[in-house]
Amino acid sequence: MSDLQTGGGPAGALPLAYGHVDPALFPTEQLAEAAGEALAQQGQSALNYGAELGCGPLRDYLRSKLARDEGLALEPENLIITAGASGALDMALRLFTRPGDTVLVEAPSYHEALAVIRDYPVKLAAVPMDGDGLRVDALQRRLESLVDAGERPALLYTIPSFQNPSGVTLSAERRPQALELAYRHDLLIIEDDVYRDIYFEDPPPRSIFQMDTHGVTIRLGSFSKILAPGLRVGWAVGTAAQVERMAACGLTKSGGGANPFAAYVAAVFCERGWLEPHIVGLRQAYRQRREVLLAALRATMPPDVAWTEPAGGFFVWLTLPEPLSAAEVLQRAQRLGITFLTGEPFFTKGRKQGRRHIRVPFSYLELGDLTRGMEILAEAIRQSA
Amino acid sequence: MSDLQTGGGPAGALPLAYGHVDPALFPTEQLAEAAGEALAQQGQSALNYGAELGCGPLRDYLRSKLARDEGLALEPENLIITAGASGALDMALRLFTRPGDTVLVEAPSYHEALAVIRDYPVKLAAVPMDGDGLRVDALQRRLESLVDAGERPALLYTIPSFQNPSGVTLSAERRPQALELAYRHDLLIIEDDVYRDIYFEDPPPRSIFQMDTHGVTIRLGSFSKILAPGLRVGWAVGTAAQVERMAACGLTKSGGGANPFAAYVAAVFCERGWLEPHIVGLRQAYRQRREVLLAALRATMPPDVAWTEPAGGFFVWLTLPEPLSAAEVLQRAQRLGITFLTGEPFFTKGRKQGRRHIRVPFSYLELGDLTRGMEILAEAIRQSA
Repeated sequence: MSDLQTGGGPAGALPLAYGHVDPALFPTEQLAEAAGEALAQQGQSALNYGAELGCGPLRDYLRSKLARDEGLALEPENLIITAGASGALDMALRLFTRPGDTVLVEAPSYHEALAVIRDYPVKLAAVPMDGDGLRVDALQRRLESLVDAGERPALLYTIPSFQNPSGVTLSAERRPQALELAYRHDLLIIEDDVYRDIYFEDPPPRSIFQMDTHGVTIRLGSFSKILAPGLRVGWAVGTAAQVERMAACGLTKSGGGANPFAAYVAAVFCERGWLEPHIVGLRQAYRQRREVLLAALRATMPPDVAWTEPAGGFFVWLTLPEPLSAAEVLQRAQRLGITFLTGEPFFTKGRKQGRRHIRVPFSYLELGDLTRGMEILAEAIRQSA
Repeated sequence: MSDLQTGGGPAGALPLAYGHVDPALFPTEQLAEAAGEALAQQGQSALNYGAELGCGPLRDYLRSKLARDEGLALEPENLIITAGASGALDMALRLFTRPGDTVLVEAPSYHEALAVIRDYPVKLAAVPMDGDGLRVDALQRRLESLVDAGERPALLYTIPSFQNPSGVTLSAERRPQALELAYRHDLLIIEDDVYRDIYFEDPPPRSIFQMDTHGVTIRLGSFSKILAPGLRVGWAVGTAAQVERMAACGLTKSGGGANPFAAYVAAVFCERGWLEPHIVGLRQAYRQRREVLLAALRATMPPDVAWTEPAGGFFVWLTLPEPLSAAEVLQRAQRLGITFLTGEPFFTKGRKQGRRHIRVPFSYLELGDLTRGMEILAEAIRQSA
């Protein structure tokens, strides 16, 4: 069976629905060599239940990477290997919220993160974004009105760098402002920073975690965007107490740390010095795709269609002019040979807020397909107008 | 760093705390070959987000294994790959219980499963066992008294074959009786059957899942006991609706199925025909260890110490005579050079119920160490008497 879905579109349609890495960019041969070495040298650890904090060599590597790239000084007890960023988010919901709590998210936000949150008995509250990311003024009003209503806002889930789906980055100015609100309202911030390394010019602003002086932020990272999502290996950094709670949770204890086998393979890959040049290559590849996509948008889109110009990550976010509906454009687009996700699933109140939006990933398709895809999308928009 | 803890004992102590597989029994070279082939032949699938039901070839293999071994006829929509049995249990708690529900467990039960359950806002209720497993009469009384008290018993977690920690198997007679109670009380049964393949004479009775005519049972399996726990690959079988709910949960959708890379490696291992002879070898190895352990117990233990004689699995469960306390024996034993788990963590009311019990795994230590360990344990018991 194919493991890739058609994204709901007809067979053969260009799949603009995927926010996936292009498999052609996987360093498959190096990973095969790393797997062989991990099993030959450390097979007994890689194949067994492991320490609850996760694969030791990988934790050492990640701390040195974060120190080198960002000047982050982390002790061993500040970092835990997780089953991807998704596994860490799921764990944070389980361990750090109570039934009836309110979880704040960006509008729009990553739709599968909303699905993770909806599996818990919590309420969702969305805070609007603009071109500088999460609107901190709106966050403040929302927090105050929740408290006035007797609710307990417990957690803020944010993707501050090159957000999925909008491509927008939270400005350096707003980050400490969001933190101040978290301090004041006893809010845990889950900072999903999985796109941080995929920047096209400059690195994104210092992370919320790094600016945090009160230990209210858990930051998530992942090998899914910079190596291979099928490994299901990510990490979380936080205070010793937060990390200890994650290490002591039932799933971590019963499983013996997150995914030892894949983590040892990733560790060998990193220890060989292969990750850094691979990330440099990914930045070049995705930057080129962004250039081609933006050029195609400028060349093809009817007036009044707006889009974001991301400085990194995988996504451009398109806004259609009134009264166009993205669902209608999708219908025509599928007949013309492309498929994509409309905005609804990225909002907590999808039908109202998402209907004029289209997420356009540039991570999965090659250059020619991106250009062709935008020509088709523009044609579908024109036909719908 | 070493990924194996000392089990709380002094360095160098014989670790009878582990219920782990002996790493010497891992088929490391075959797994290295399988990893190489999985990446060479199916790297793009193995390294990517996958289908929500999990690795297709592995699902095909598992359905054929269950058909061959047990005559179970499963459709593709009845089986989902999971992040080990632990990941499946965690998911079941999340998706199939509500805050305030009561979860029933065996007394004793696997202590890390209790930890998984305690991470959810549910209540725990324990049902006693005897030599034939879960006491169905006690289950019935407990269910009725819970309902009388206005509680909602939602889920029964049971390890019916070669239980961890007791080594006891639920009799064939009691299995349909437990099912009848589940039908009557709208109870979901999570049947954790991860030791099923590790039988020493005859296979265990037909699974609760197989006897279930109303679709109230989800059965969990795992490669952790029959291949390597570090892979973190297991499976769950259930009704199409149950499996669909697990496939549609946020973590599964966001992660793209459970652990694609490790699952593809396991699939190649199985497709090569390597799993069946490997399991035969494990049965022989563990049967021999059980023989040696039971012989050592008979040769060394003071009168009035009782133990179970498991027909499979990894564990013997020891009961000390009054007024001995296992904690006191452990203190002396550690000075003499072994460490083990006393009974407390396996009970929901540990201090009261577990104090006279000791779990003795025979999966991890080699024959000579098992004999020496029992000699030391017997000496520690004598010193405590």
